[in-house]
Amino acid sequence: MMLSEEQRARVCVVLVRARNPNNIGAVARAMHGFGFADLRLVNDYSVALEKARSAVDASAILAGAKEFVSVPEAVADCNLVVGTTAVGERKPEHPLYPLAEGGRLVRSALPSARVALLFGSEKTGLSNESLSHCHWLMTIPMHQSPGIRHASMNLGQAAAVCLYELVRQTDAPPLHEAQPGATAEDLERVTELLARVLAGIGYAKRRPAGAEPTEVRRMVRRLHLNQSDARRWIGILRQLLWKMGHPSE
Amino acid sequence: MMLSEEQRARVCVVLVRARNPNNIGAVARAMHGFGFADLRLVNDYSVALEKARSAVDASAILAGAKEFVSVPEAVADCNLVVGTTAVGERKPEHPLYPLAEGGRLVRSALPSARVALLFGSEKTGLSNESLSHCHWLMTIPMHQSPGIRHASMNLGQAAAVCLYELVRQTDAPPLHEAQPGATAEDLERVTELLARVLAGIGYAKRRPAGAEPTEVRRMVRRLHLNQSDARRWIGILRQLLWKMGHPSE
Repeated sequence: MMLSEEQRARVCVVLVRARNPNNIGAVARAMHGFGFADLRLVNDYSVALEKARSAVDASAILAGAKEFVSVPEAVADCNLVVGTTAVGERKPEHPLYPLAEGGRLVRSALPSARVALLFGSEKTGLSNESLSHCHWLMTIPMHQSPGIRHASMNLGQAAAVCLYELVRQTDAPPLHEAQPGATAEDLERVTELLARVLAGIGYAKRRPAGAEPTEVRRMVRRLHLNQSDARRWIGILRQLLWKMGHPSE
Repeated sequence: MMLSEEQRARVCVVLVRARNPNNIGAVARAMHGFGFADLRLVNDYSVALEKARSAVDASAILAGAKEFVSVPEAVADCNLVVGTTAVGERKPEHPLYPLAEGGRLVRSALPSARVALLFGSEKTGLSNESLSHCHWLMTIPMHQSPGIRHASMNLGQAAAVCLYELVRQTDAPPLHEAQPGATAEDLERVTELLARVLAGIGYAKRRPAGAEPTEVRRMVRRLHLNQSDARRWIGILRQLLWKMGHPSE
């Protein structure tokens, strides 16, 4: 099935620490070409976007791009957060799919979910902290030749290839309509509450590695909570914290 | 089927009148990334390639790029010549395939044929004269919105997307096999422990429906815990129950 207009509108492209205005412009151009519009930038400072707006035809996409200071804020309204990564950065704690498979999963989520595609900076990719906000990762399969240093494309090319994968298929029906996944904002609330519970029961002392913020965040993302379950867990964790503070009642 | 090294070596990328050294560098980068090496430029003058060589990391591909003064010379040793084109340039005298279909045709020719992929300049595309050397054309499907001017990508992006289509199919197993799911026994242990926690915090009183055994069981199954995460949650819930019984410690 071709992506509908509504489904395309649910795809957000999130550039984390992109500093090259030409690359930001190229990403916007690819988005425009494939019918996507929601561009979000995570940056400590907004110089890059301003330069991109003046450097290339200021398309509607660049004009409407939103800026955030952190990944969780940028993806707060998204139900599925997908990181893109070069193969070299493989993190065993995240499922990693080749783009063809990852694109299929994104397409099958789009009928009900808002999906963020995260791209890191060209030099360093996505940080562990940024990756910990992702449900899973996908990678453009790059050719590995013995003796030749690992290659990567520029940001504009990587975004073009990933977005192309989303729109190239025209006939496969979605696998299944699941309940929409929880928003990143709700998942982050679950993460915070769970971290407080773990601290309260002394779990952090006994299993320091398992209680690290990024590890707790990953563990929560792996639960693939749907919207109503996320709300339910928030209620349970809040009541638990209240009880821990009022043991005699 | 994956392209073999021999098949990749039979793909030539031919840039006709590419004048922007950055774009030529980006094409070389995409070729390197996807395992192609044969870059050919058709130009009246060789300024662009020289600049590209000095402007970007002079990869082996740029160093080995060959220059020709005409398309027929550039594709003389090729068995199949495929032009790339934006939809607007459709020429009725050539079969025109969307990239997914065109890529399939190229792959099926590669076991026996040397294939040239022709890219025109960003501004004018391929001339009628250049197109006349092509067996058929393929196009990256771009989104058409009413009232919005036809979009195109830059040369580096177009080449990256076309080459990706050639290599996207892999026989390789998923790069990362998700961990095996938890056993039913472990899930049942999580369910029992969670039910005791819910009873302990009074959740059953406030939300009786949500604390029913079957509902708790369903909620735990929806978490799709893997083996190690199930063990981790068992540890957390046990420590939580212990703490609830020993509030002062």
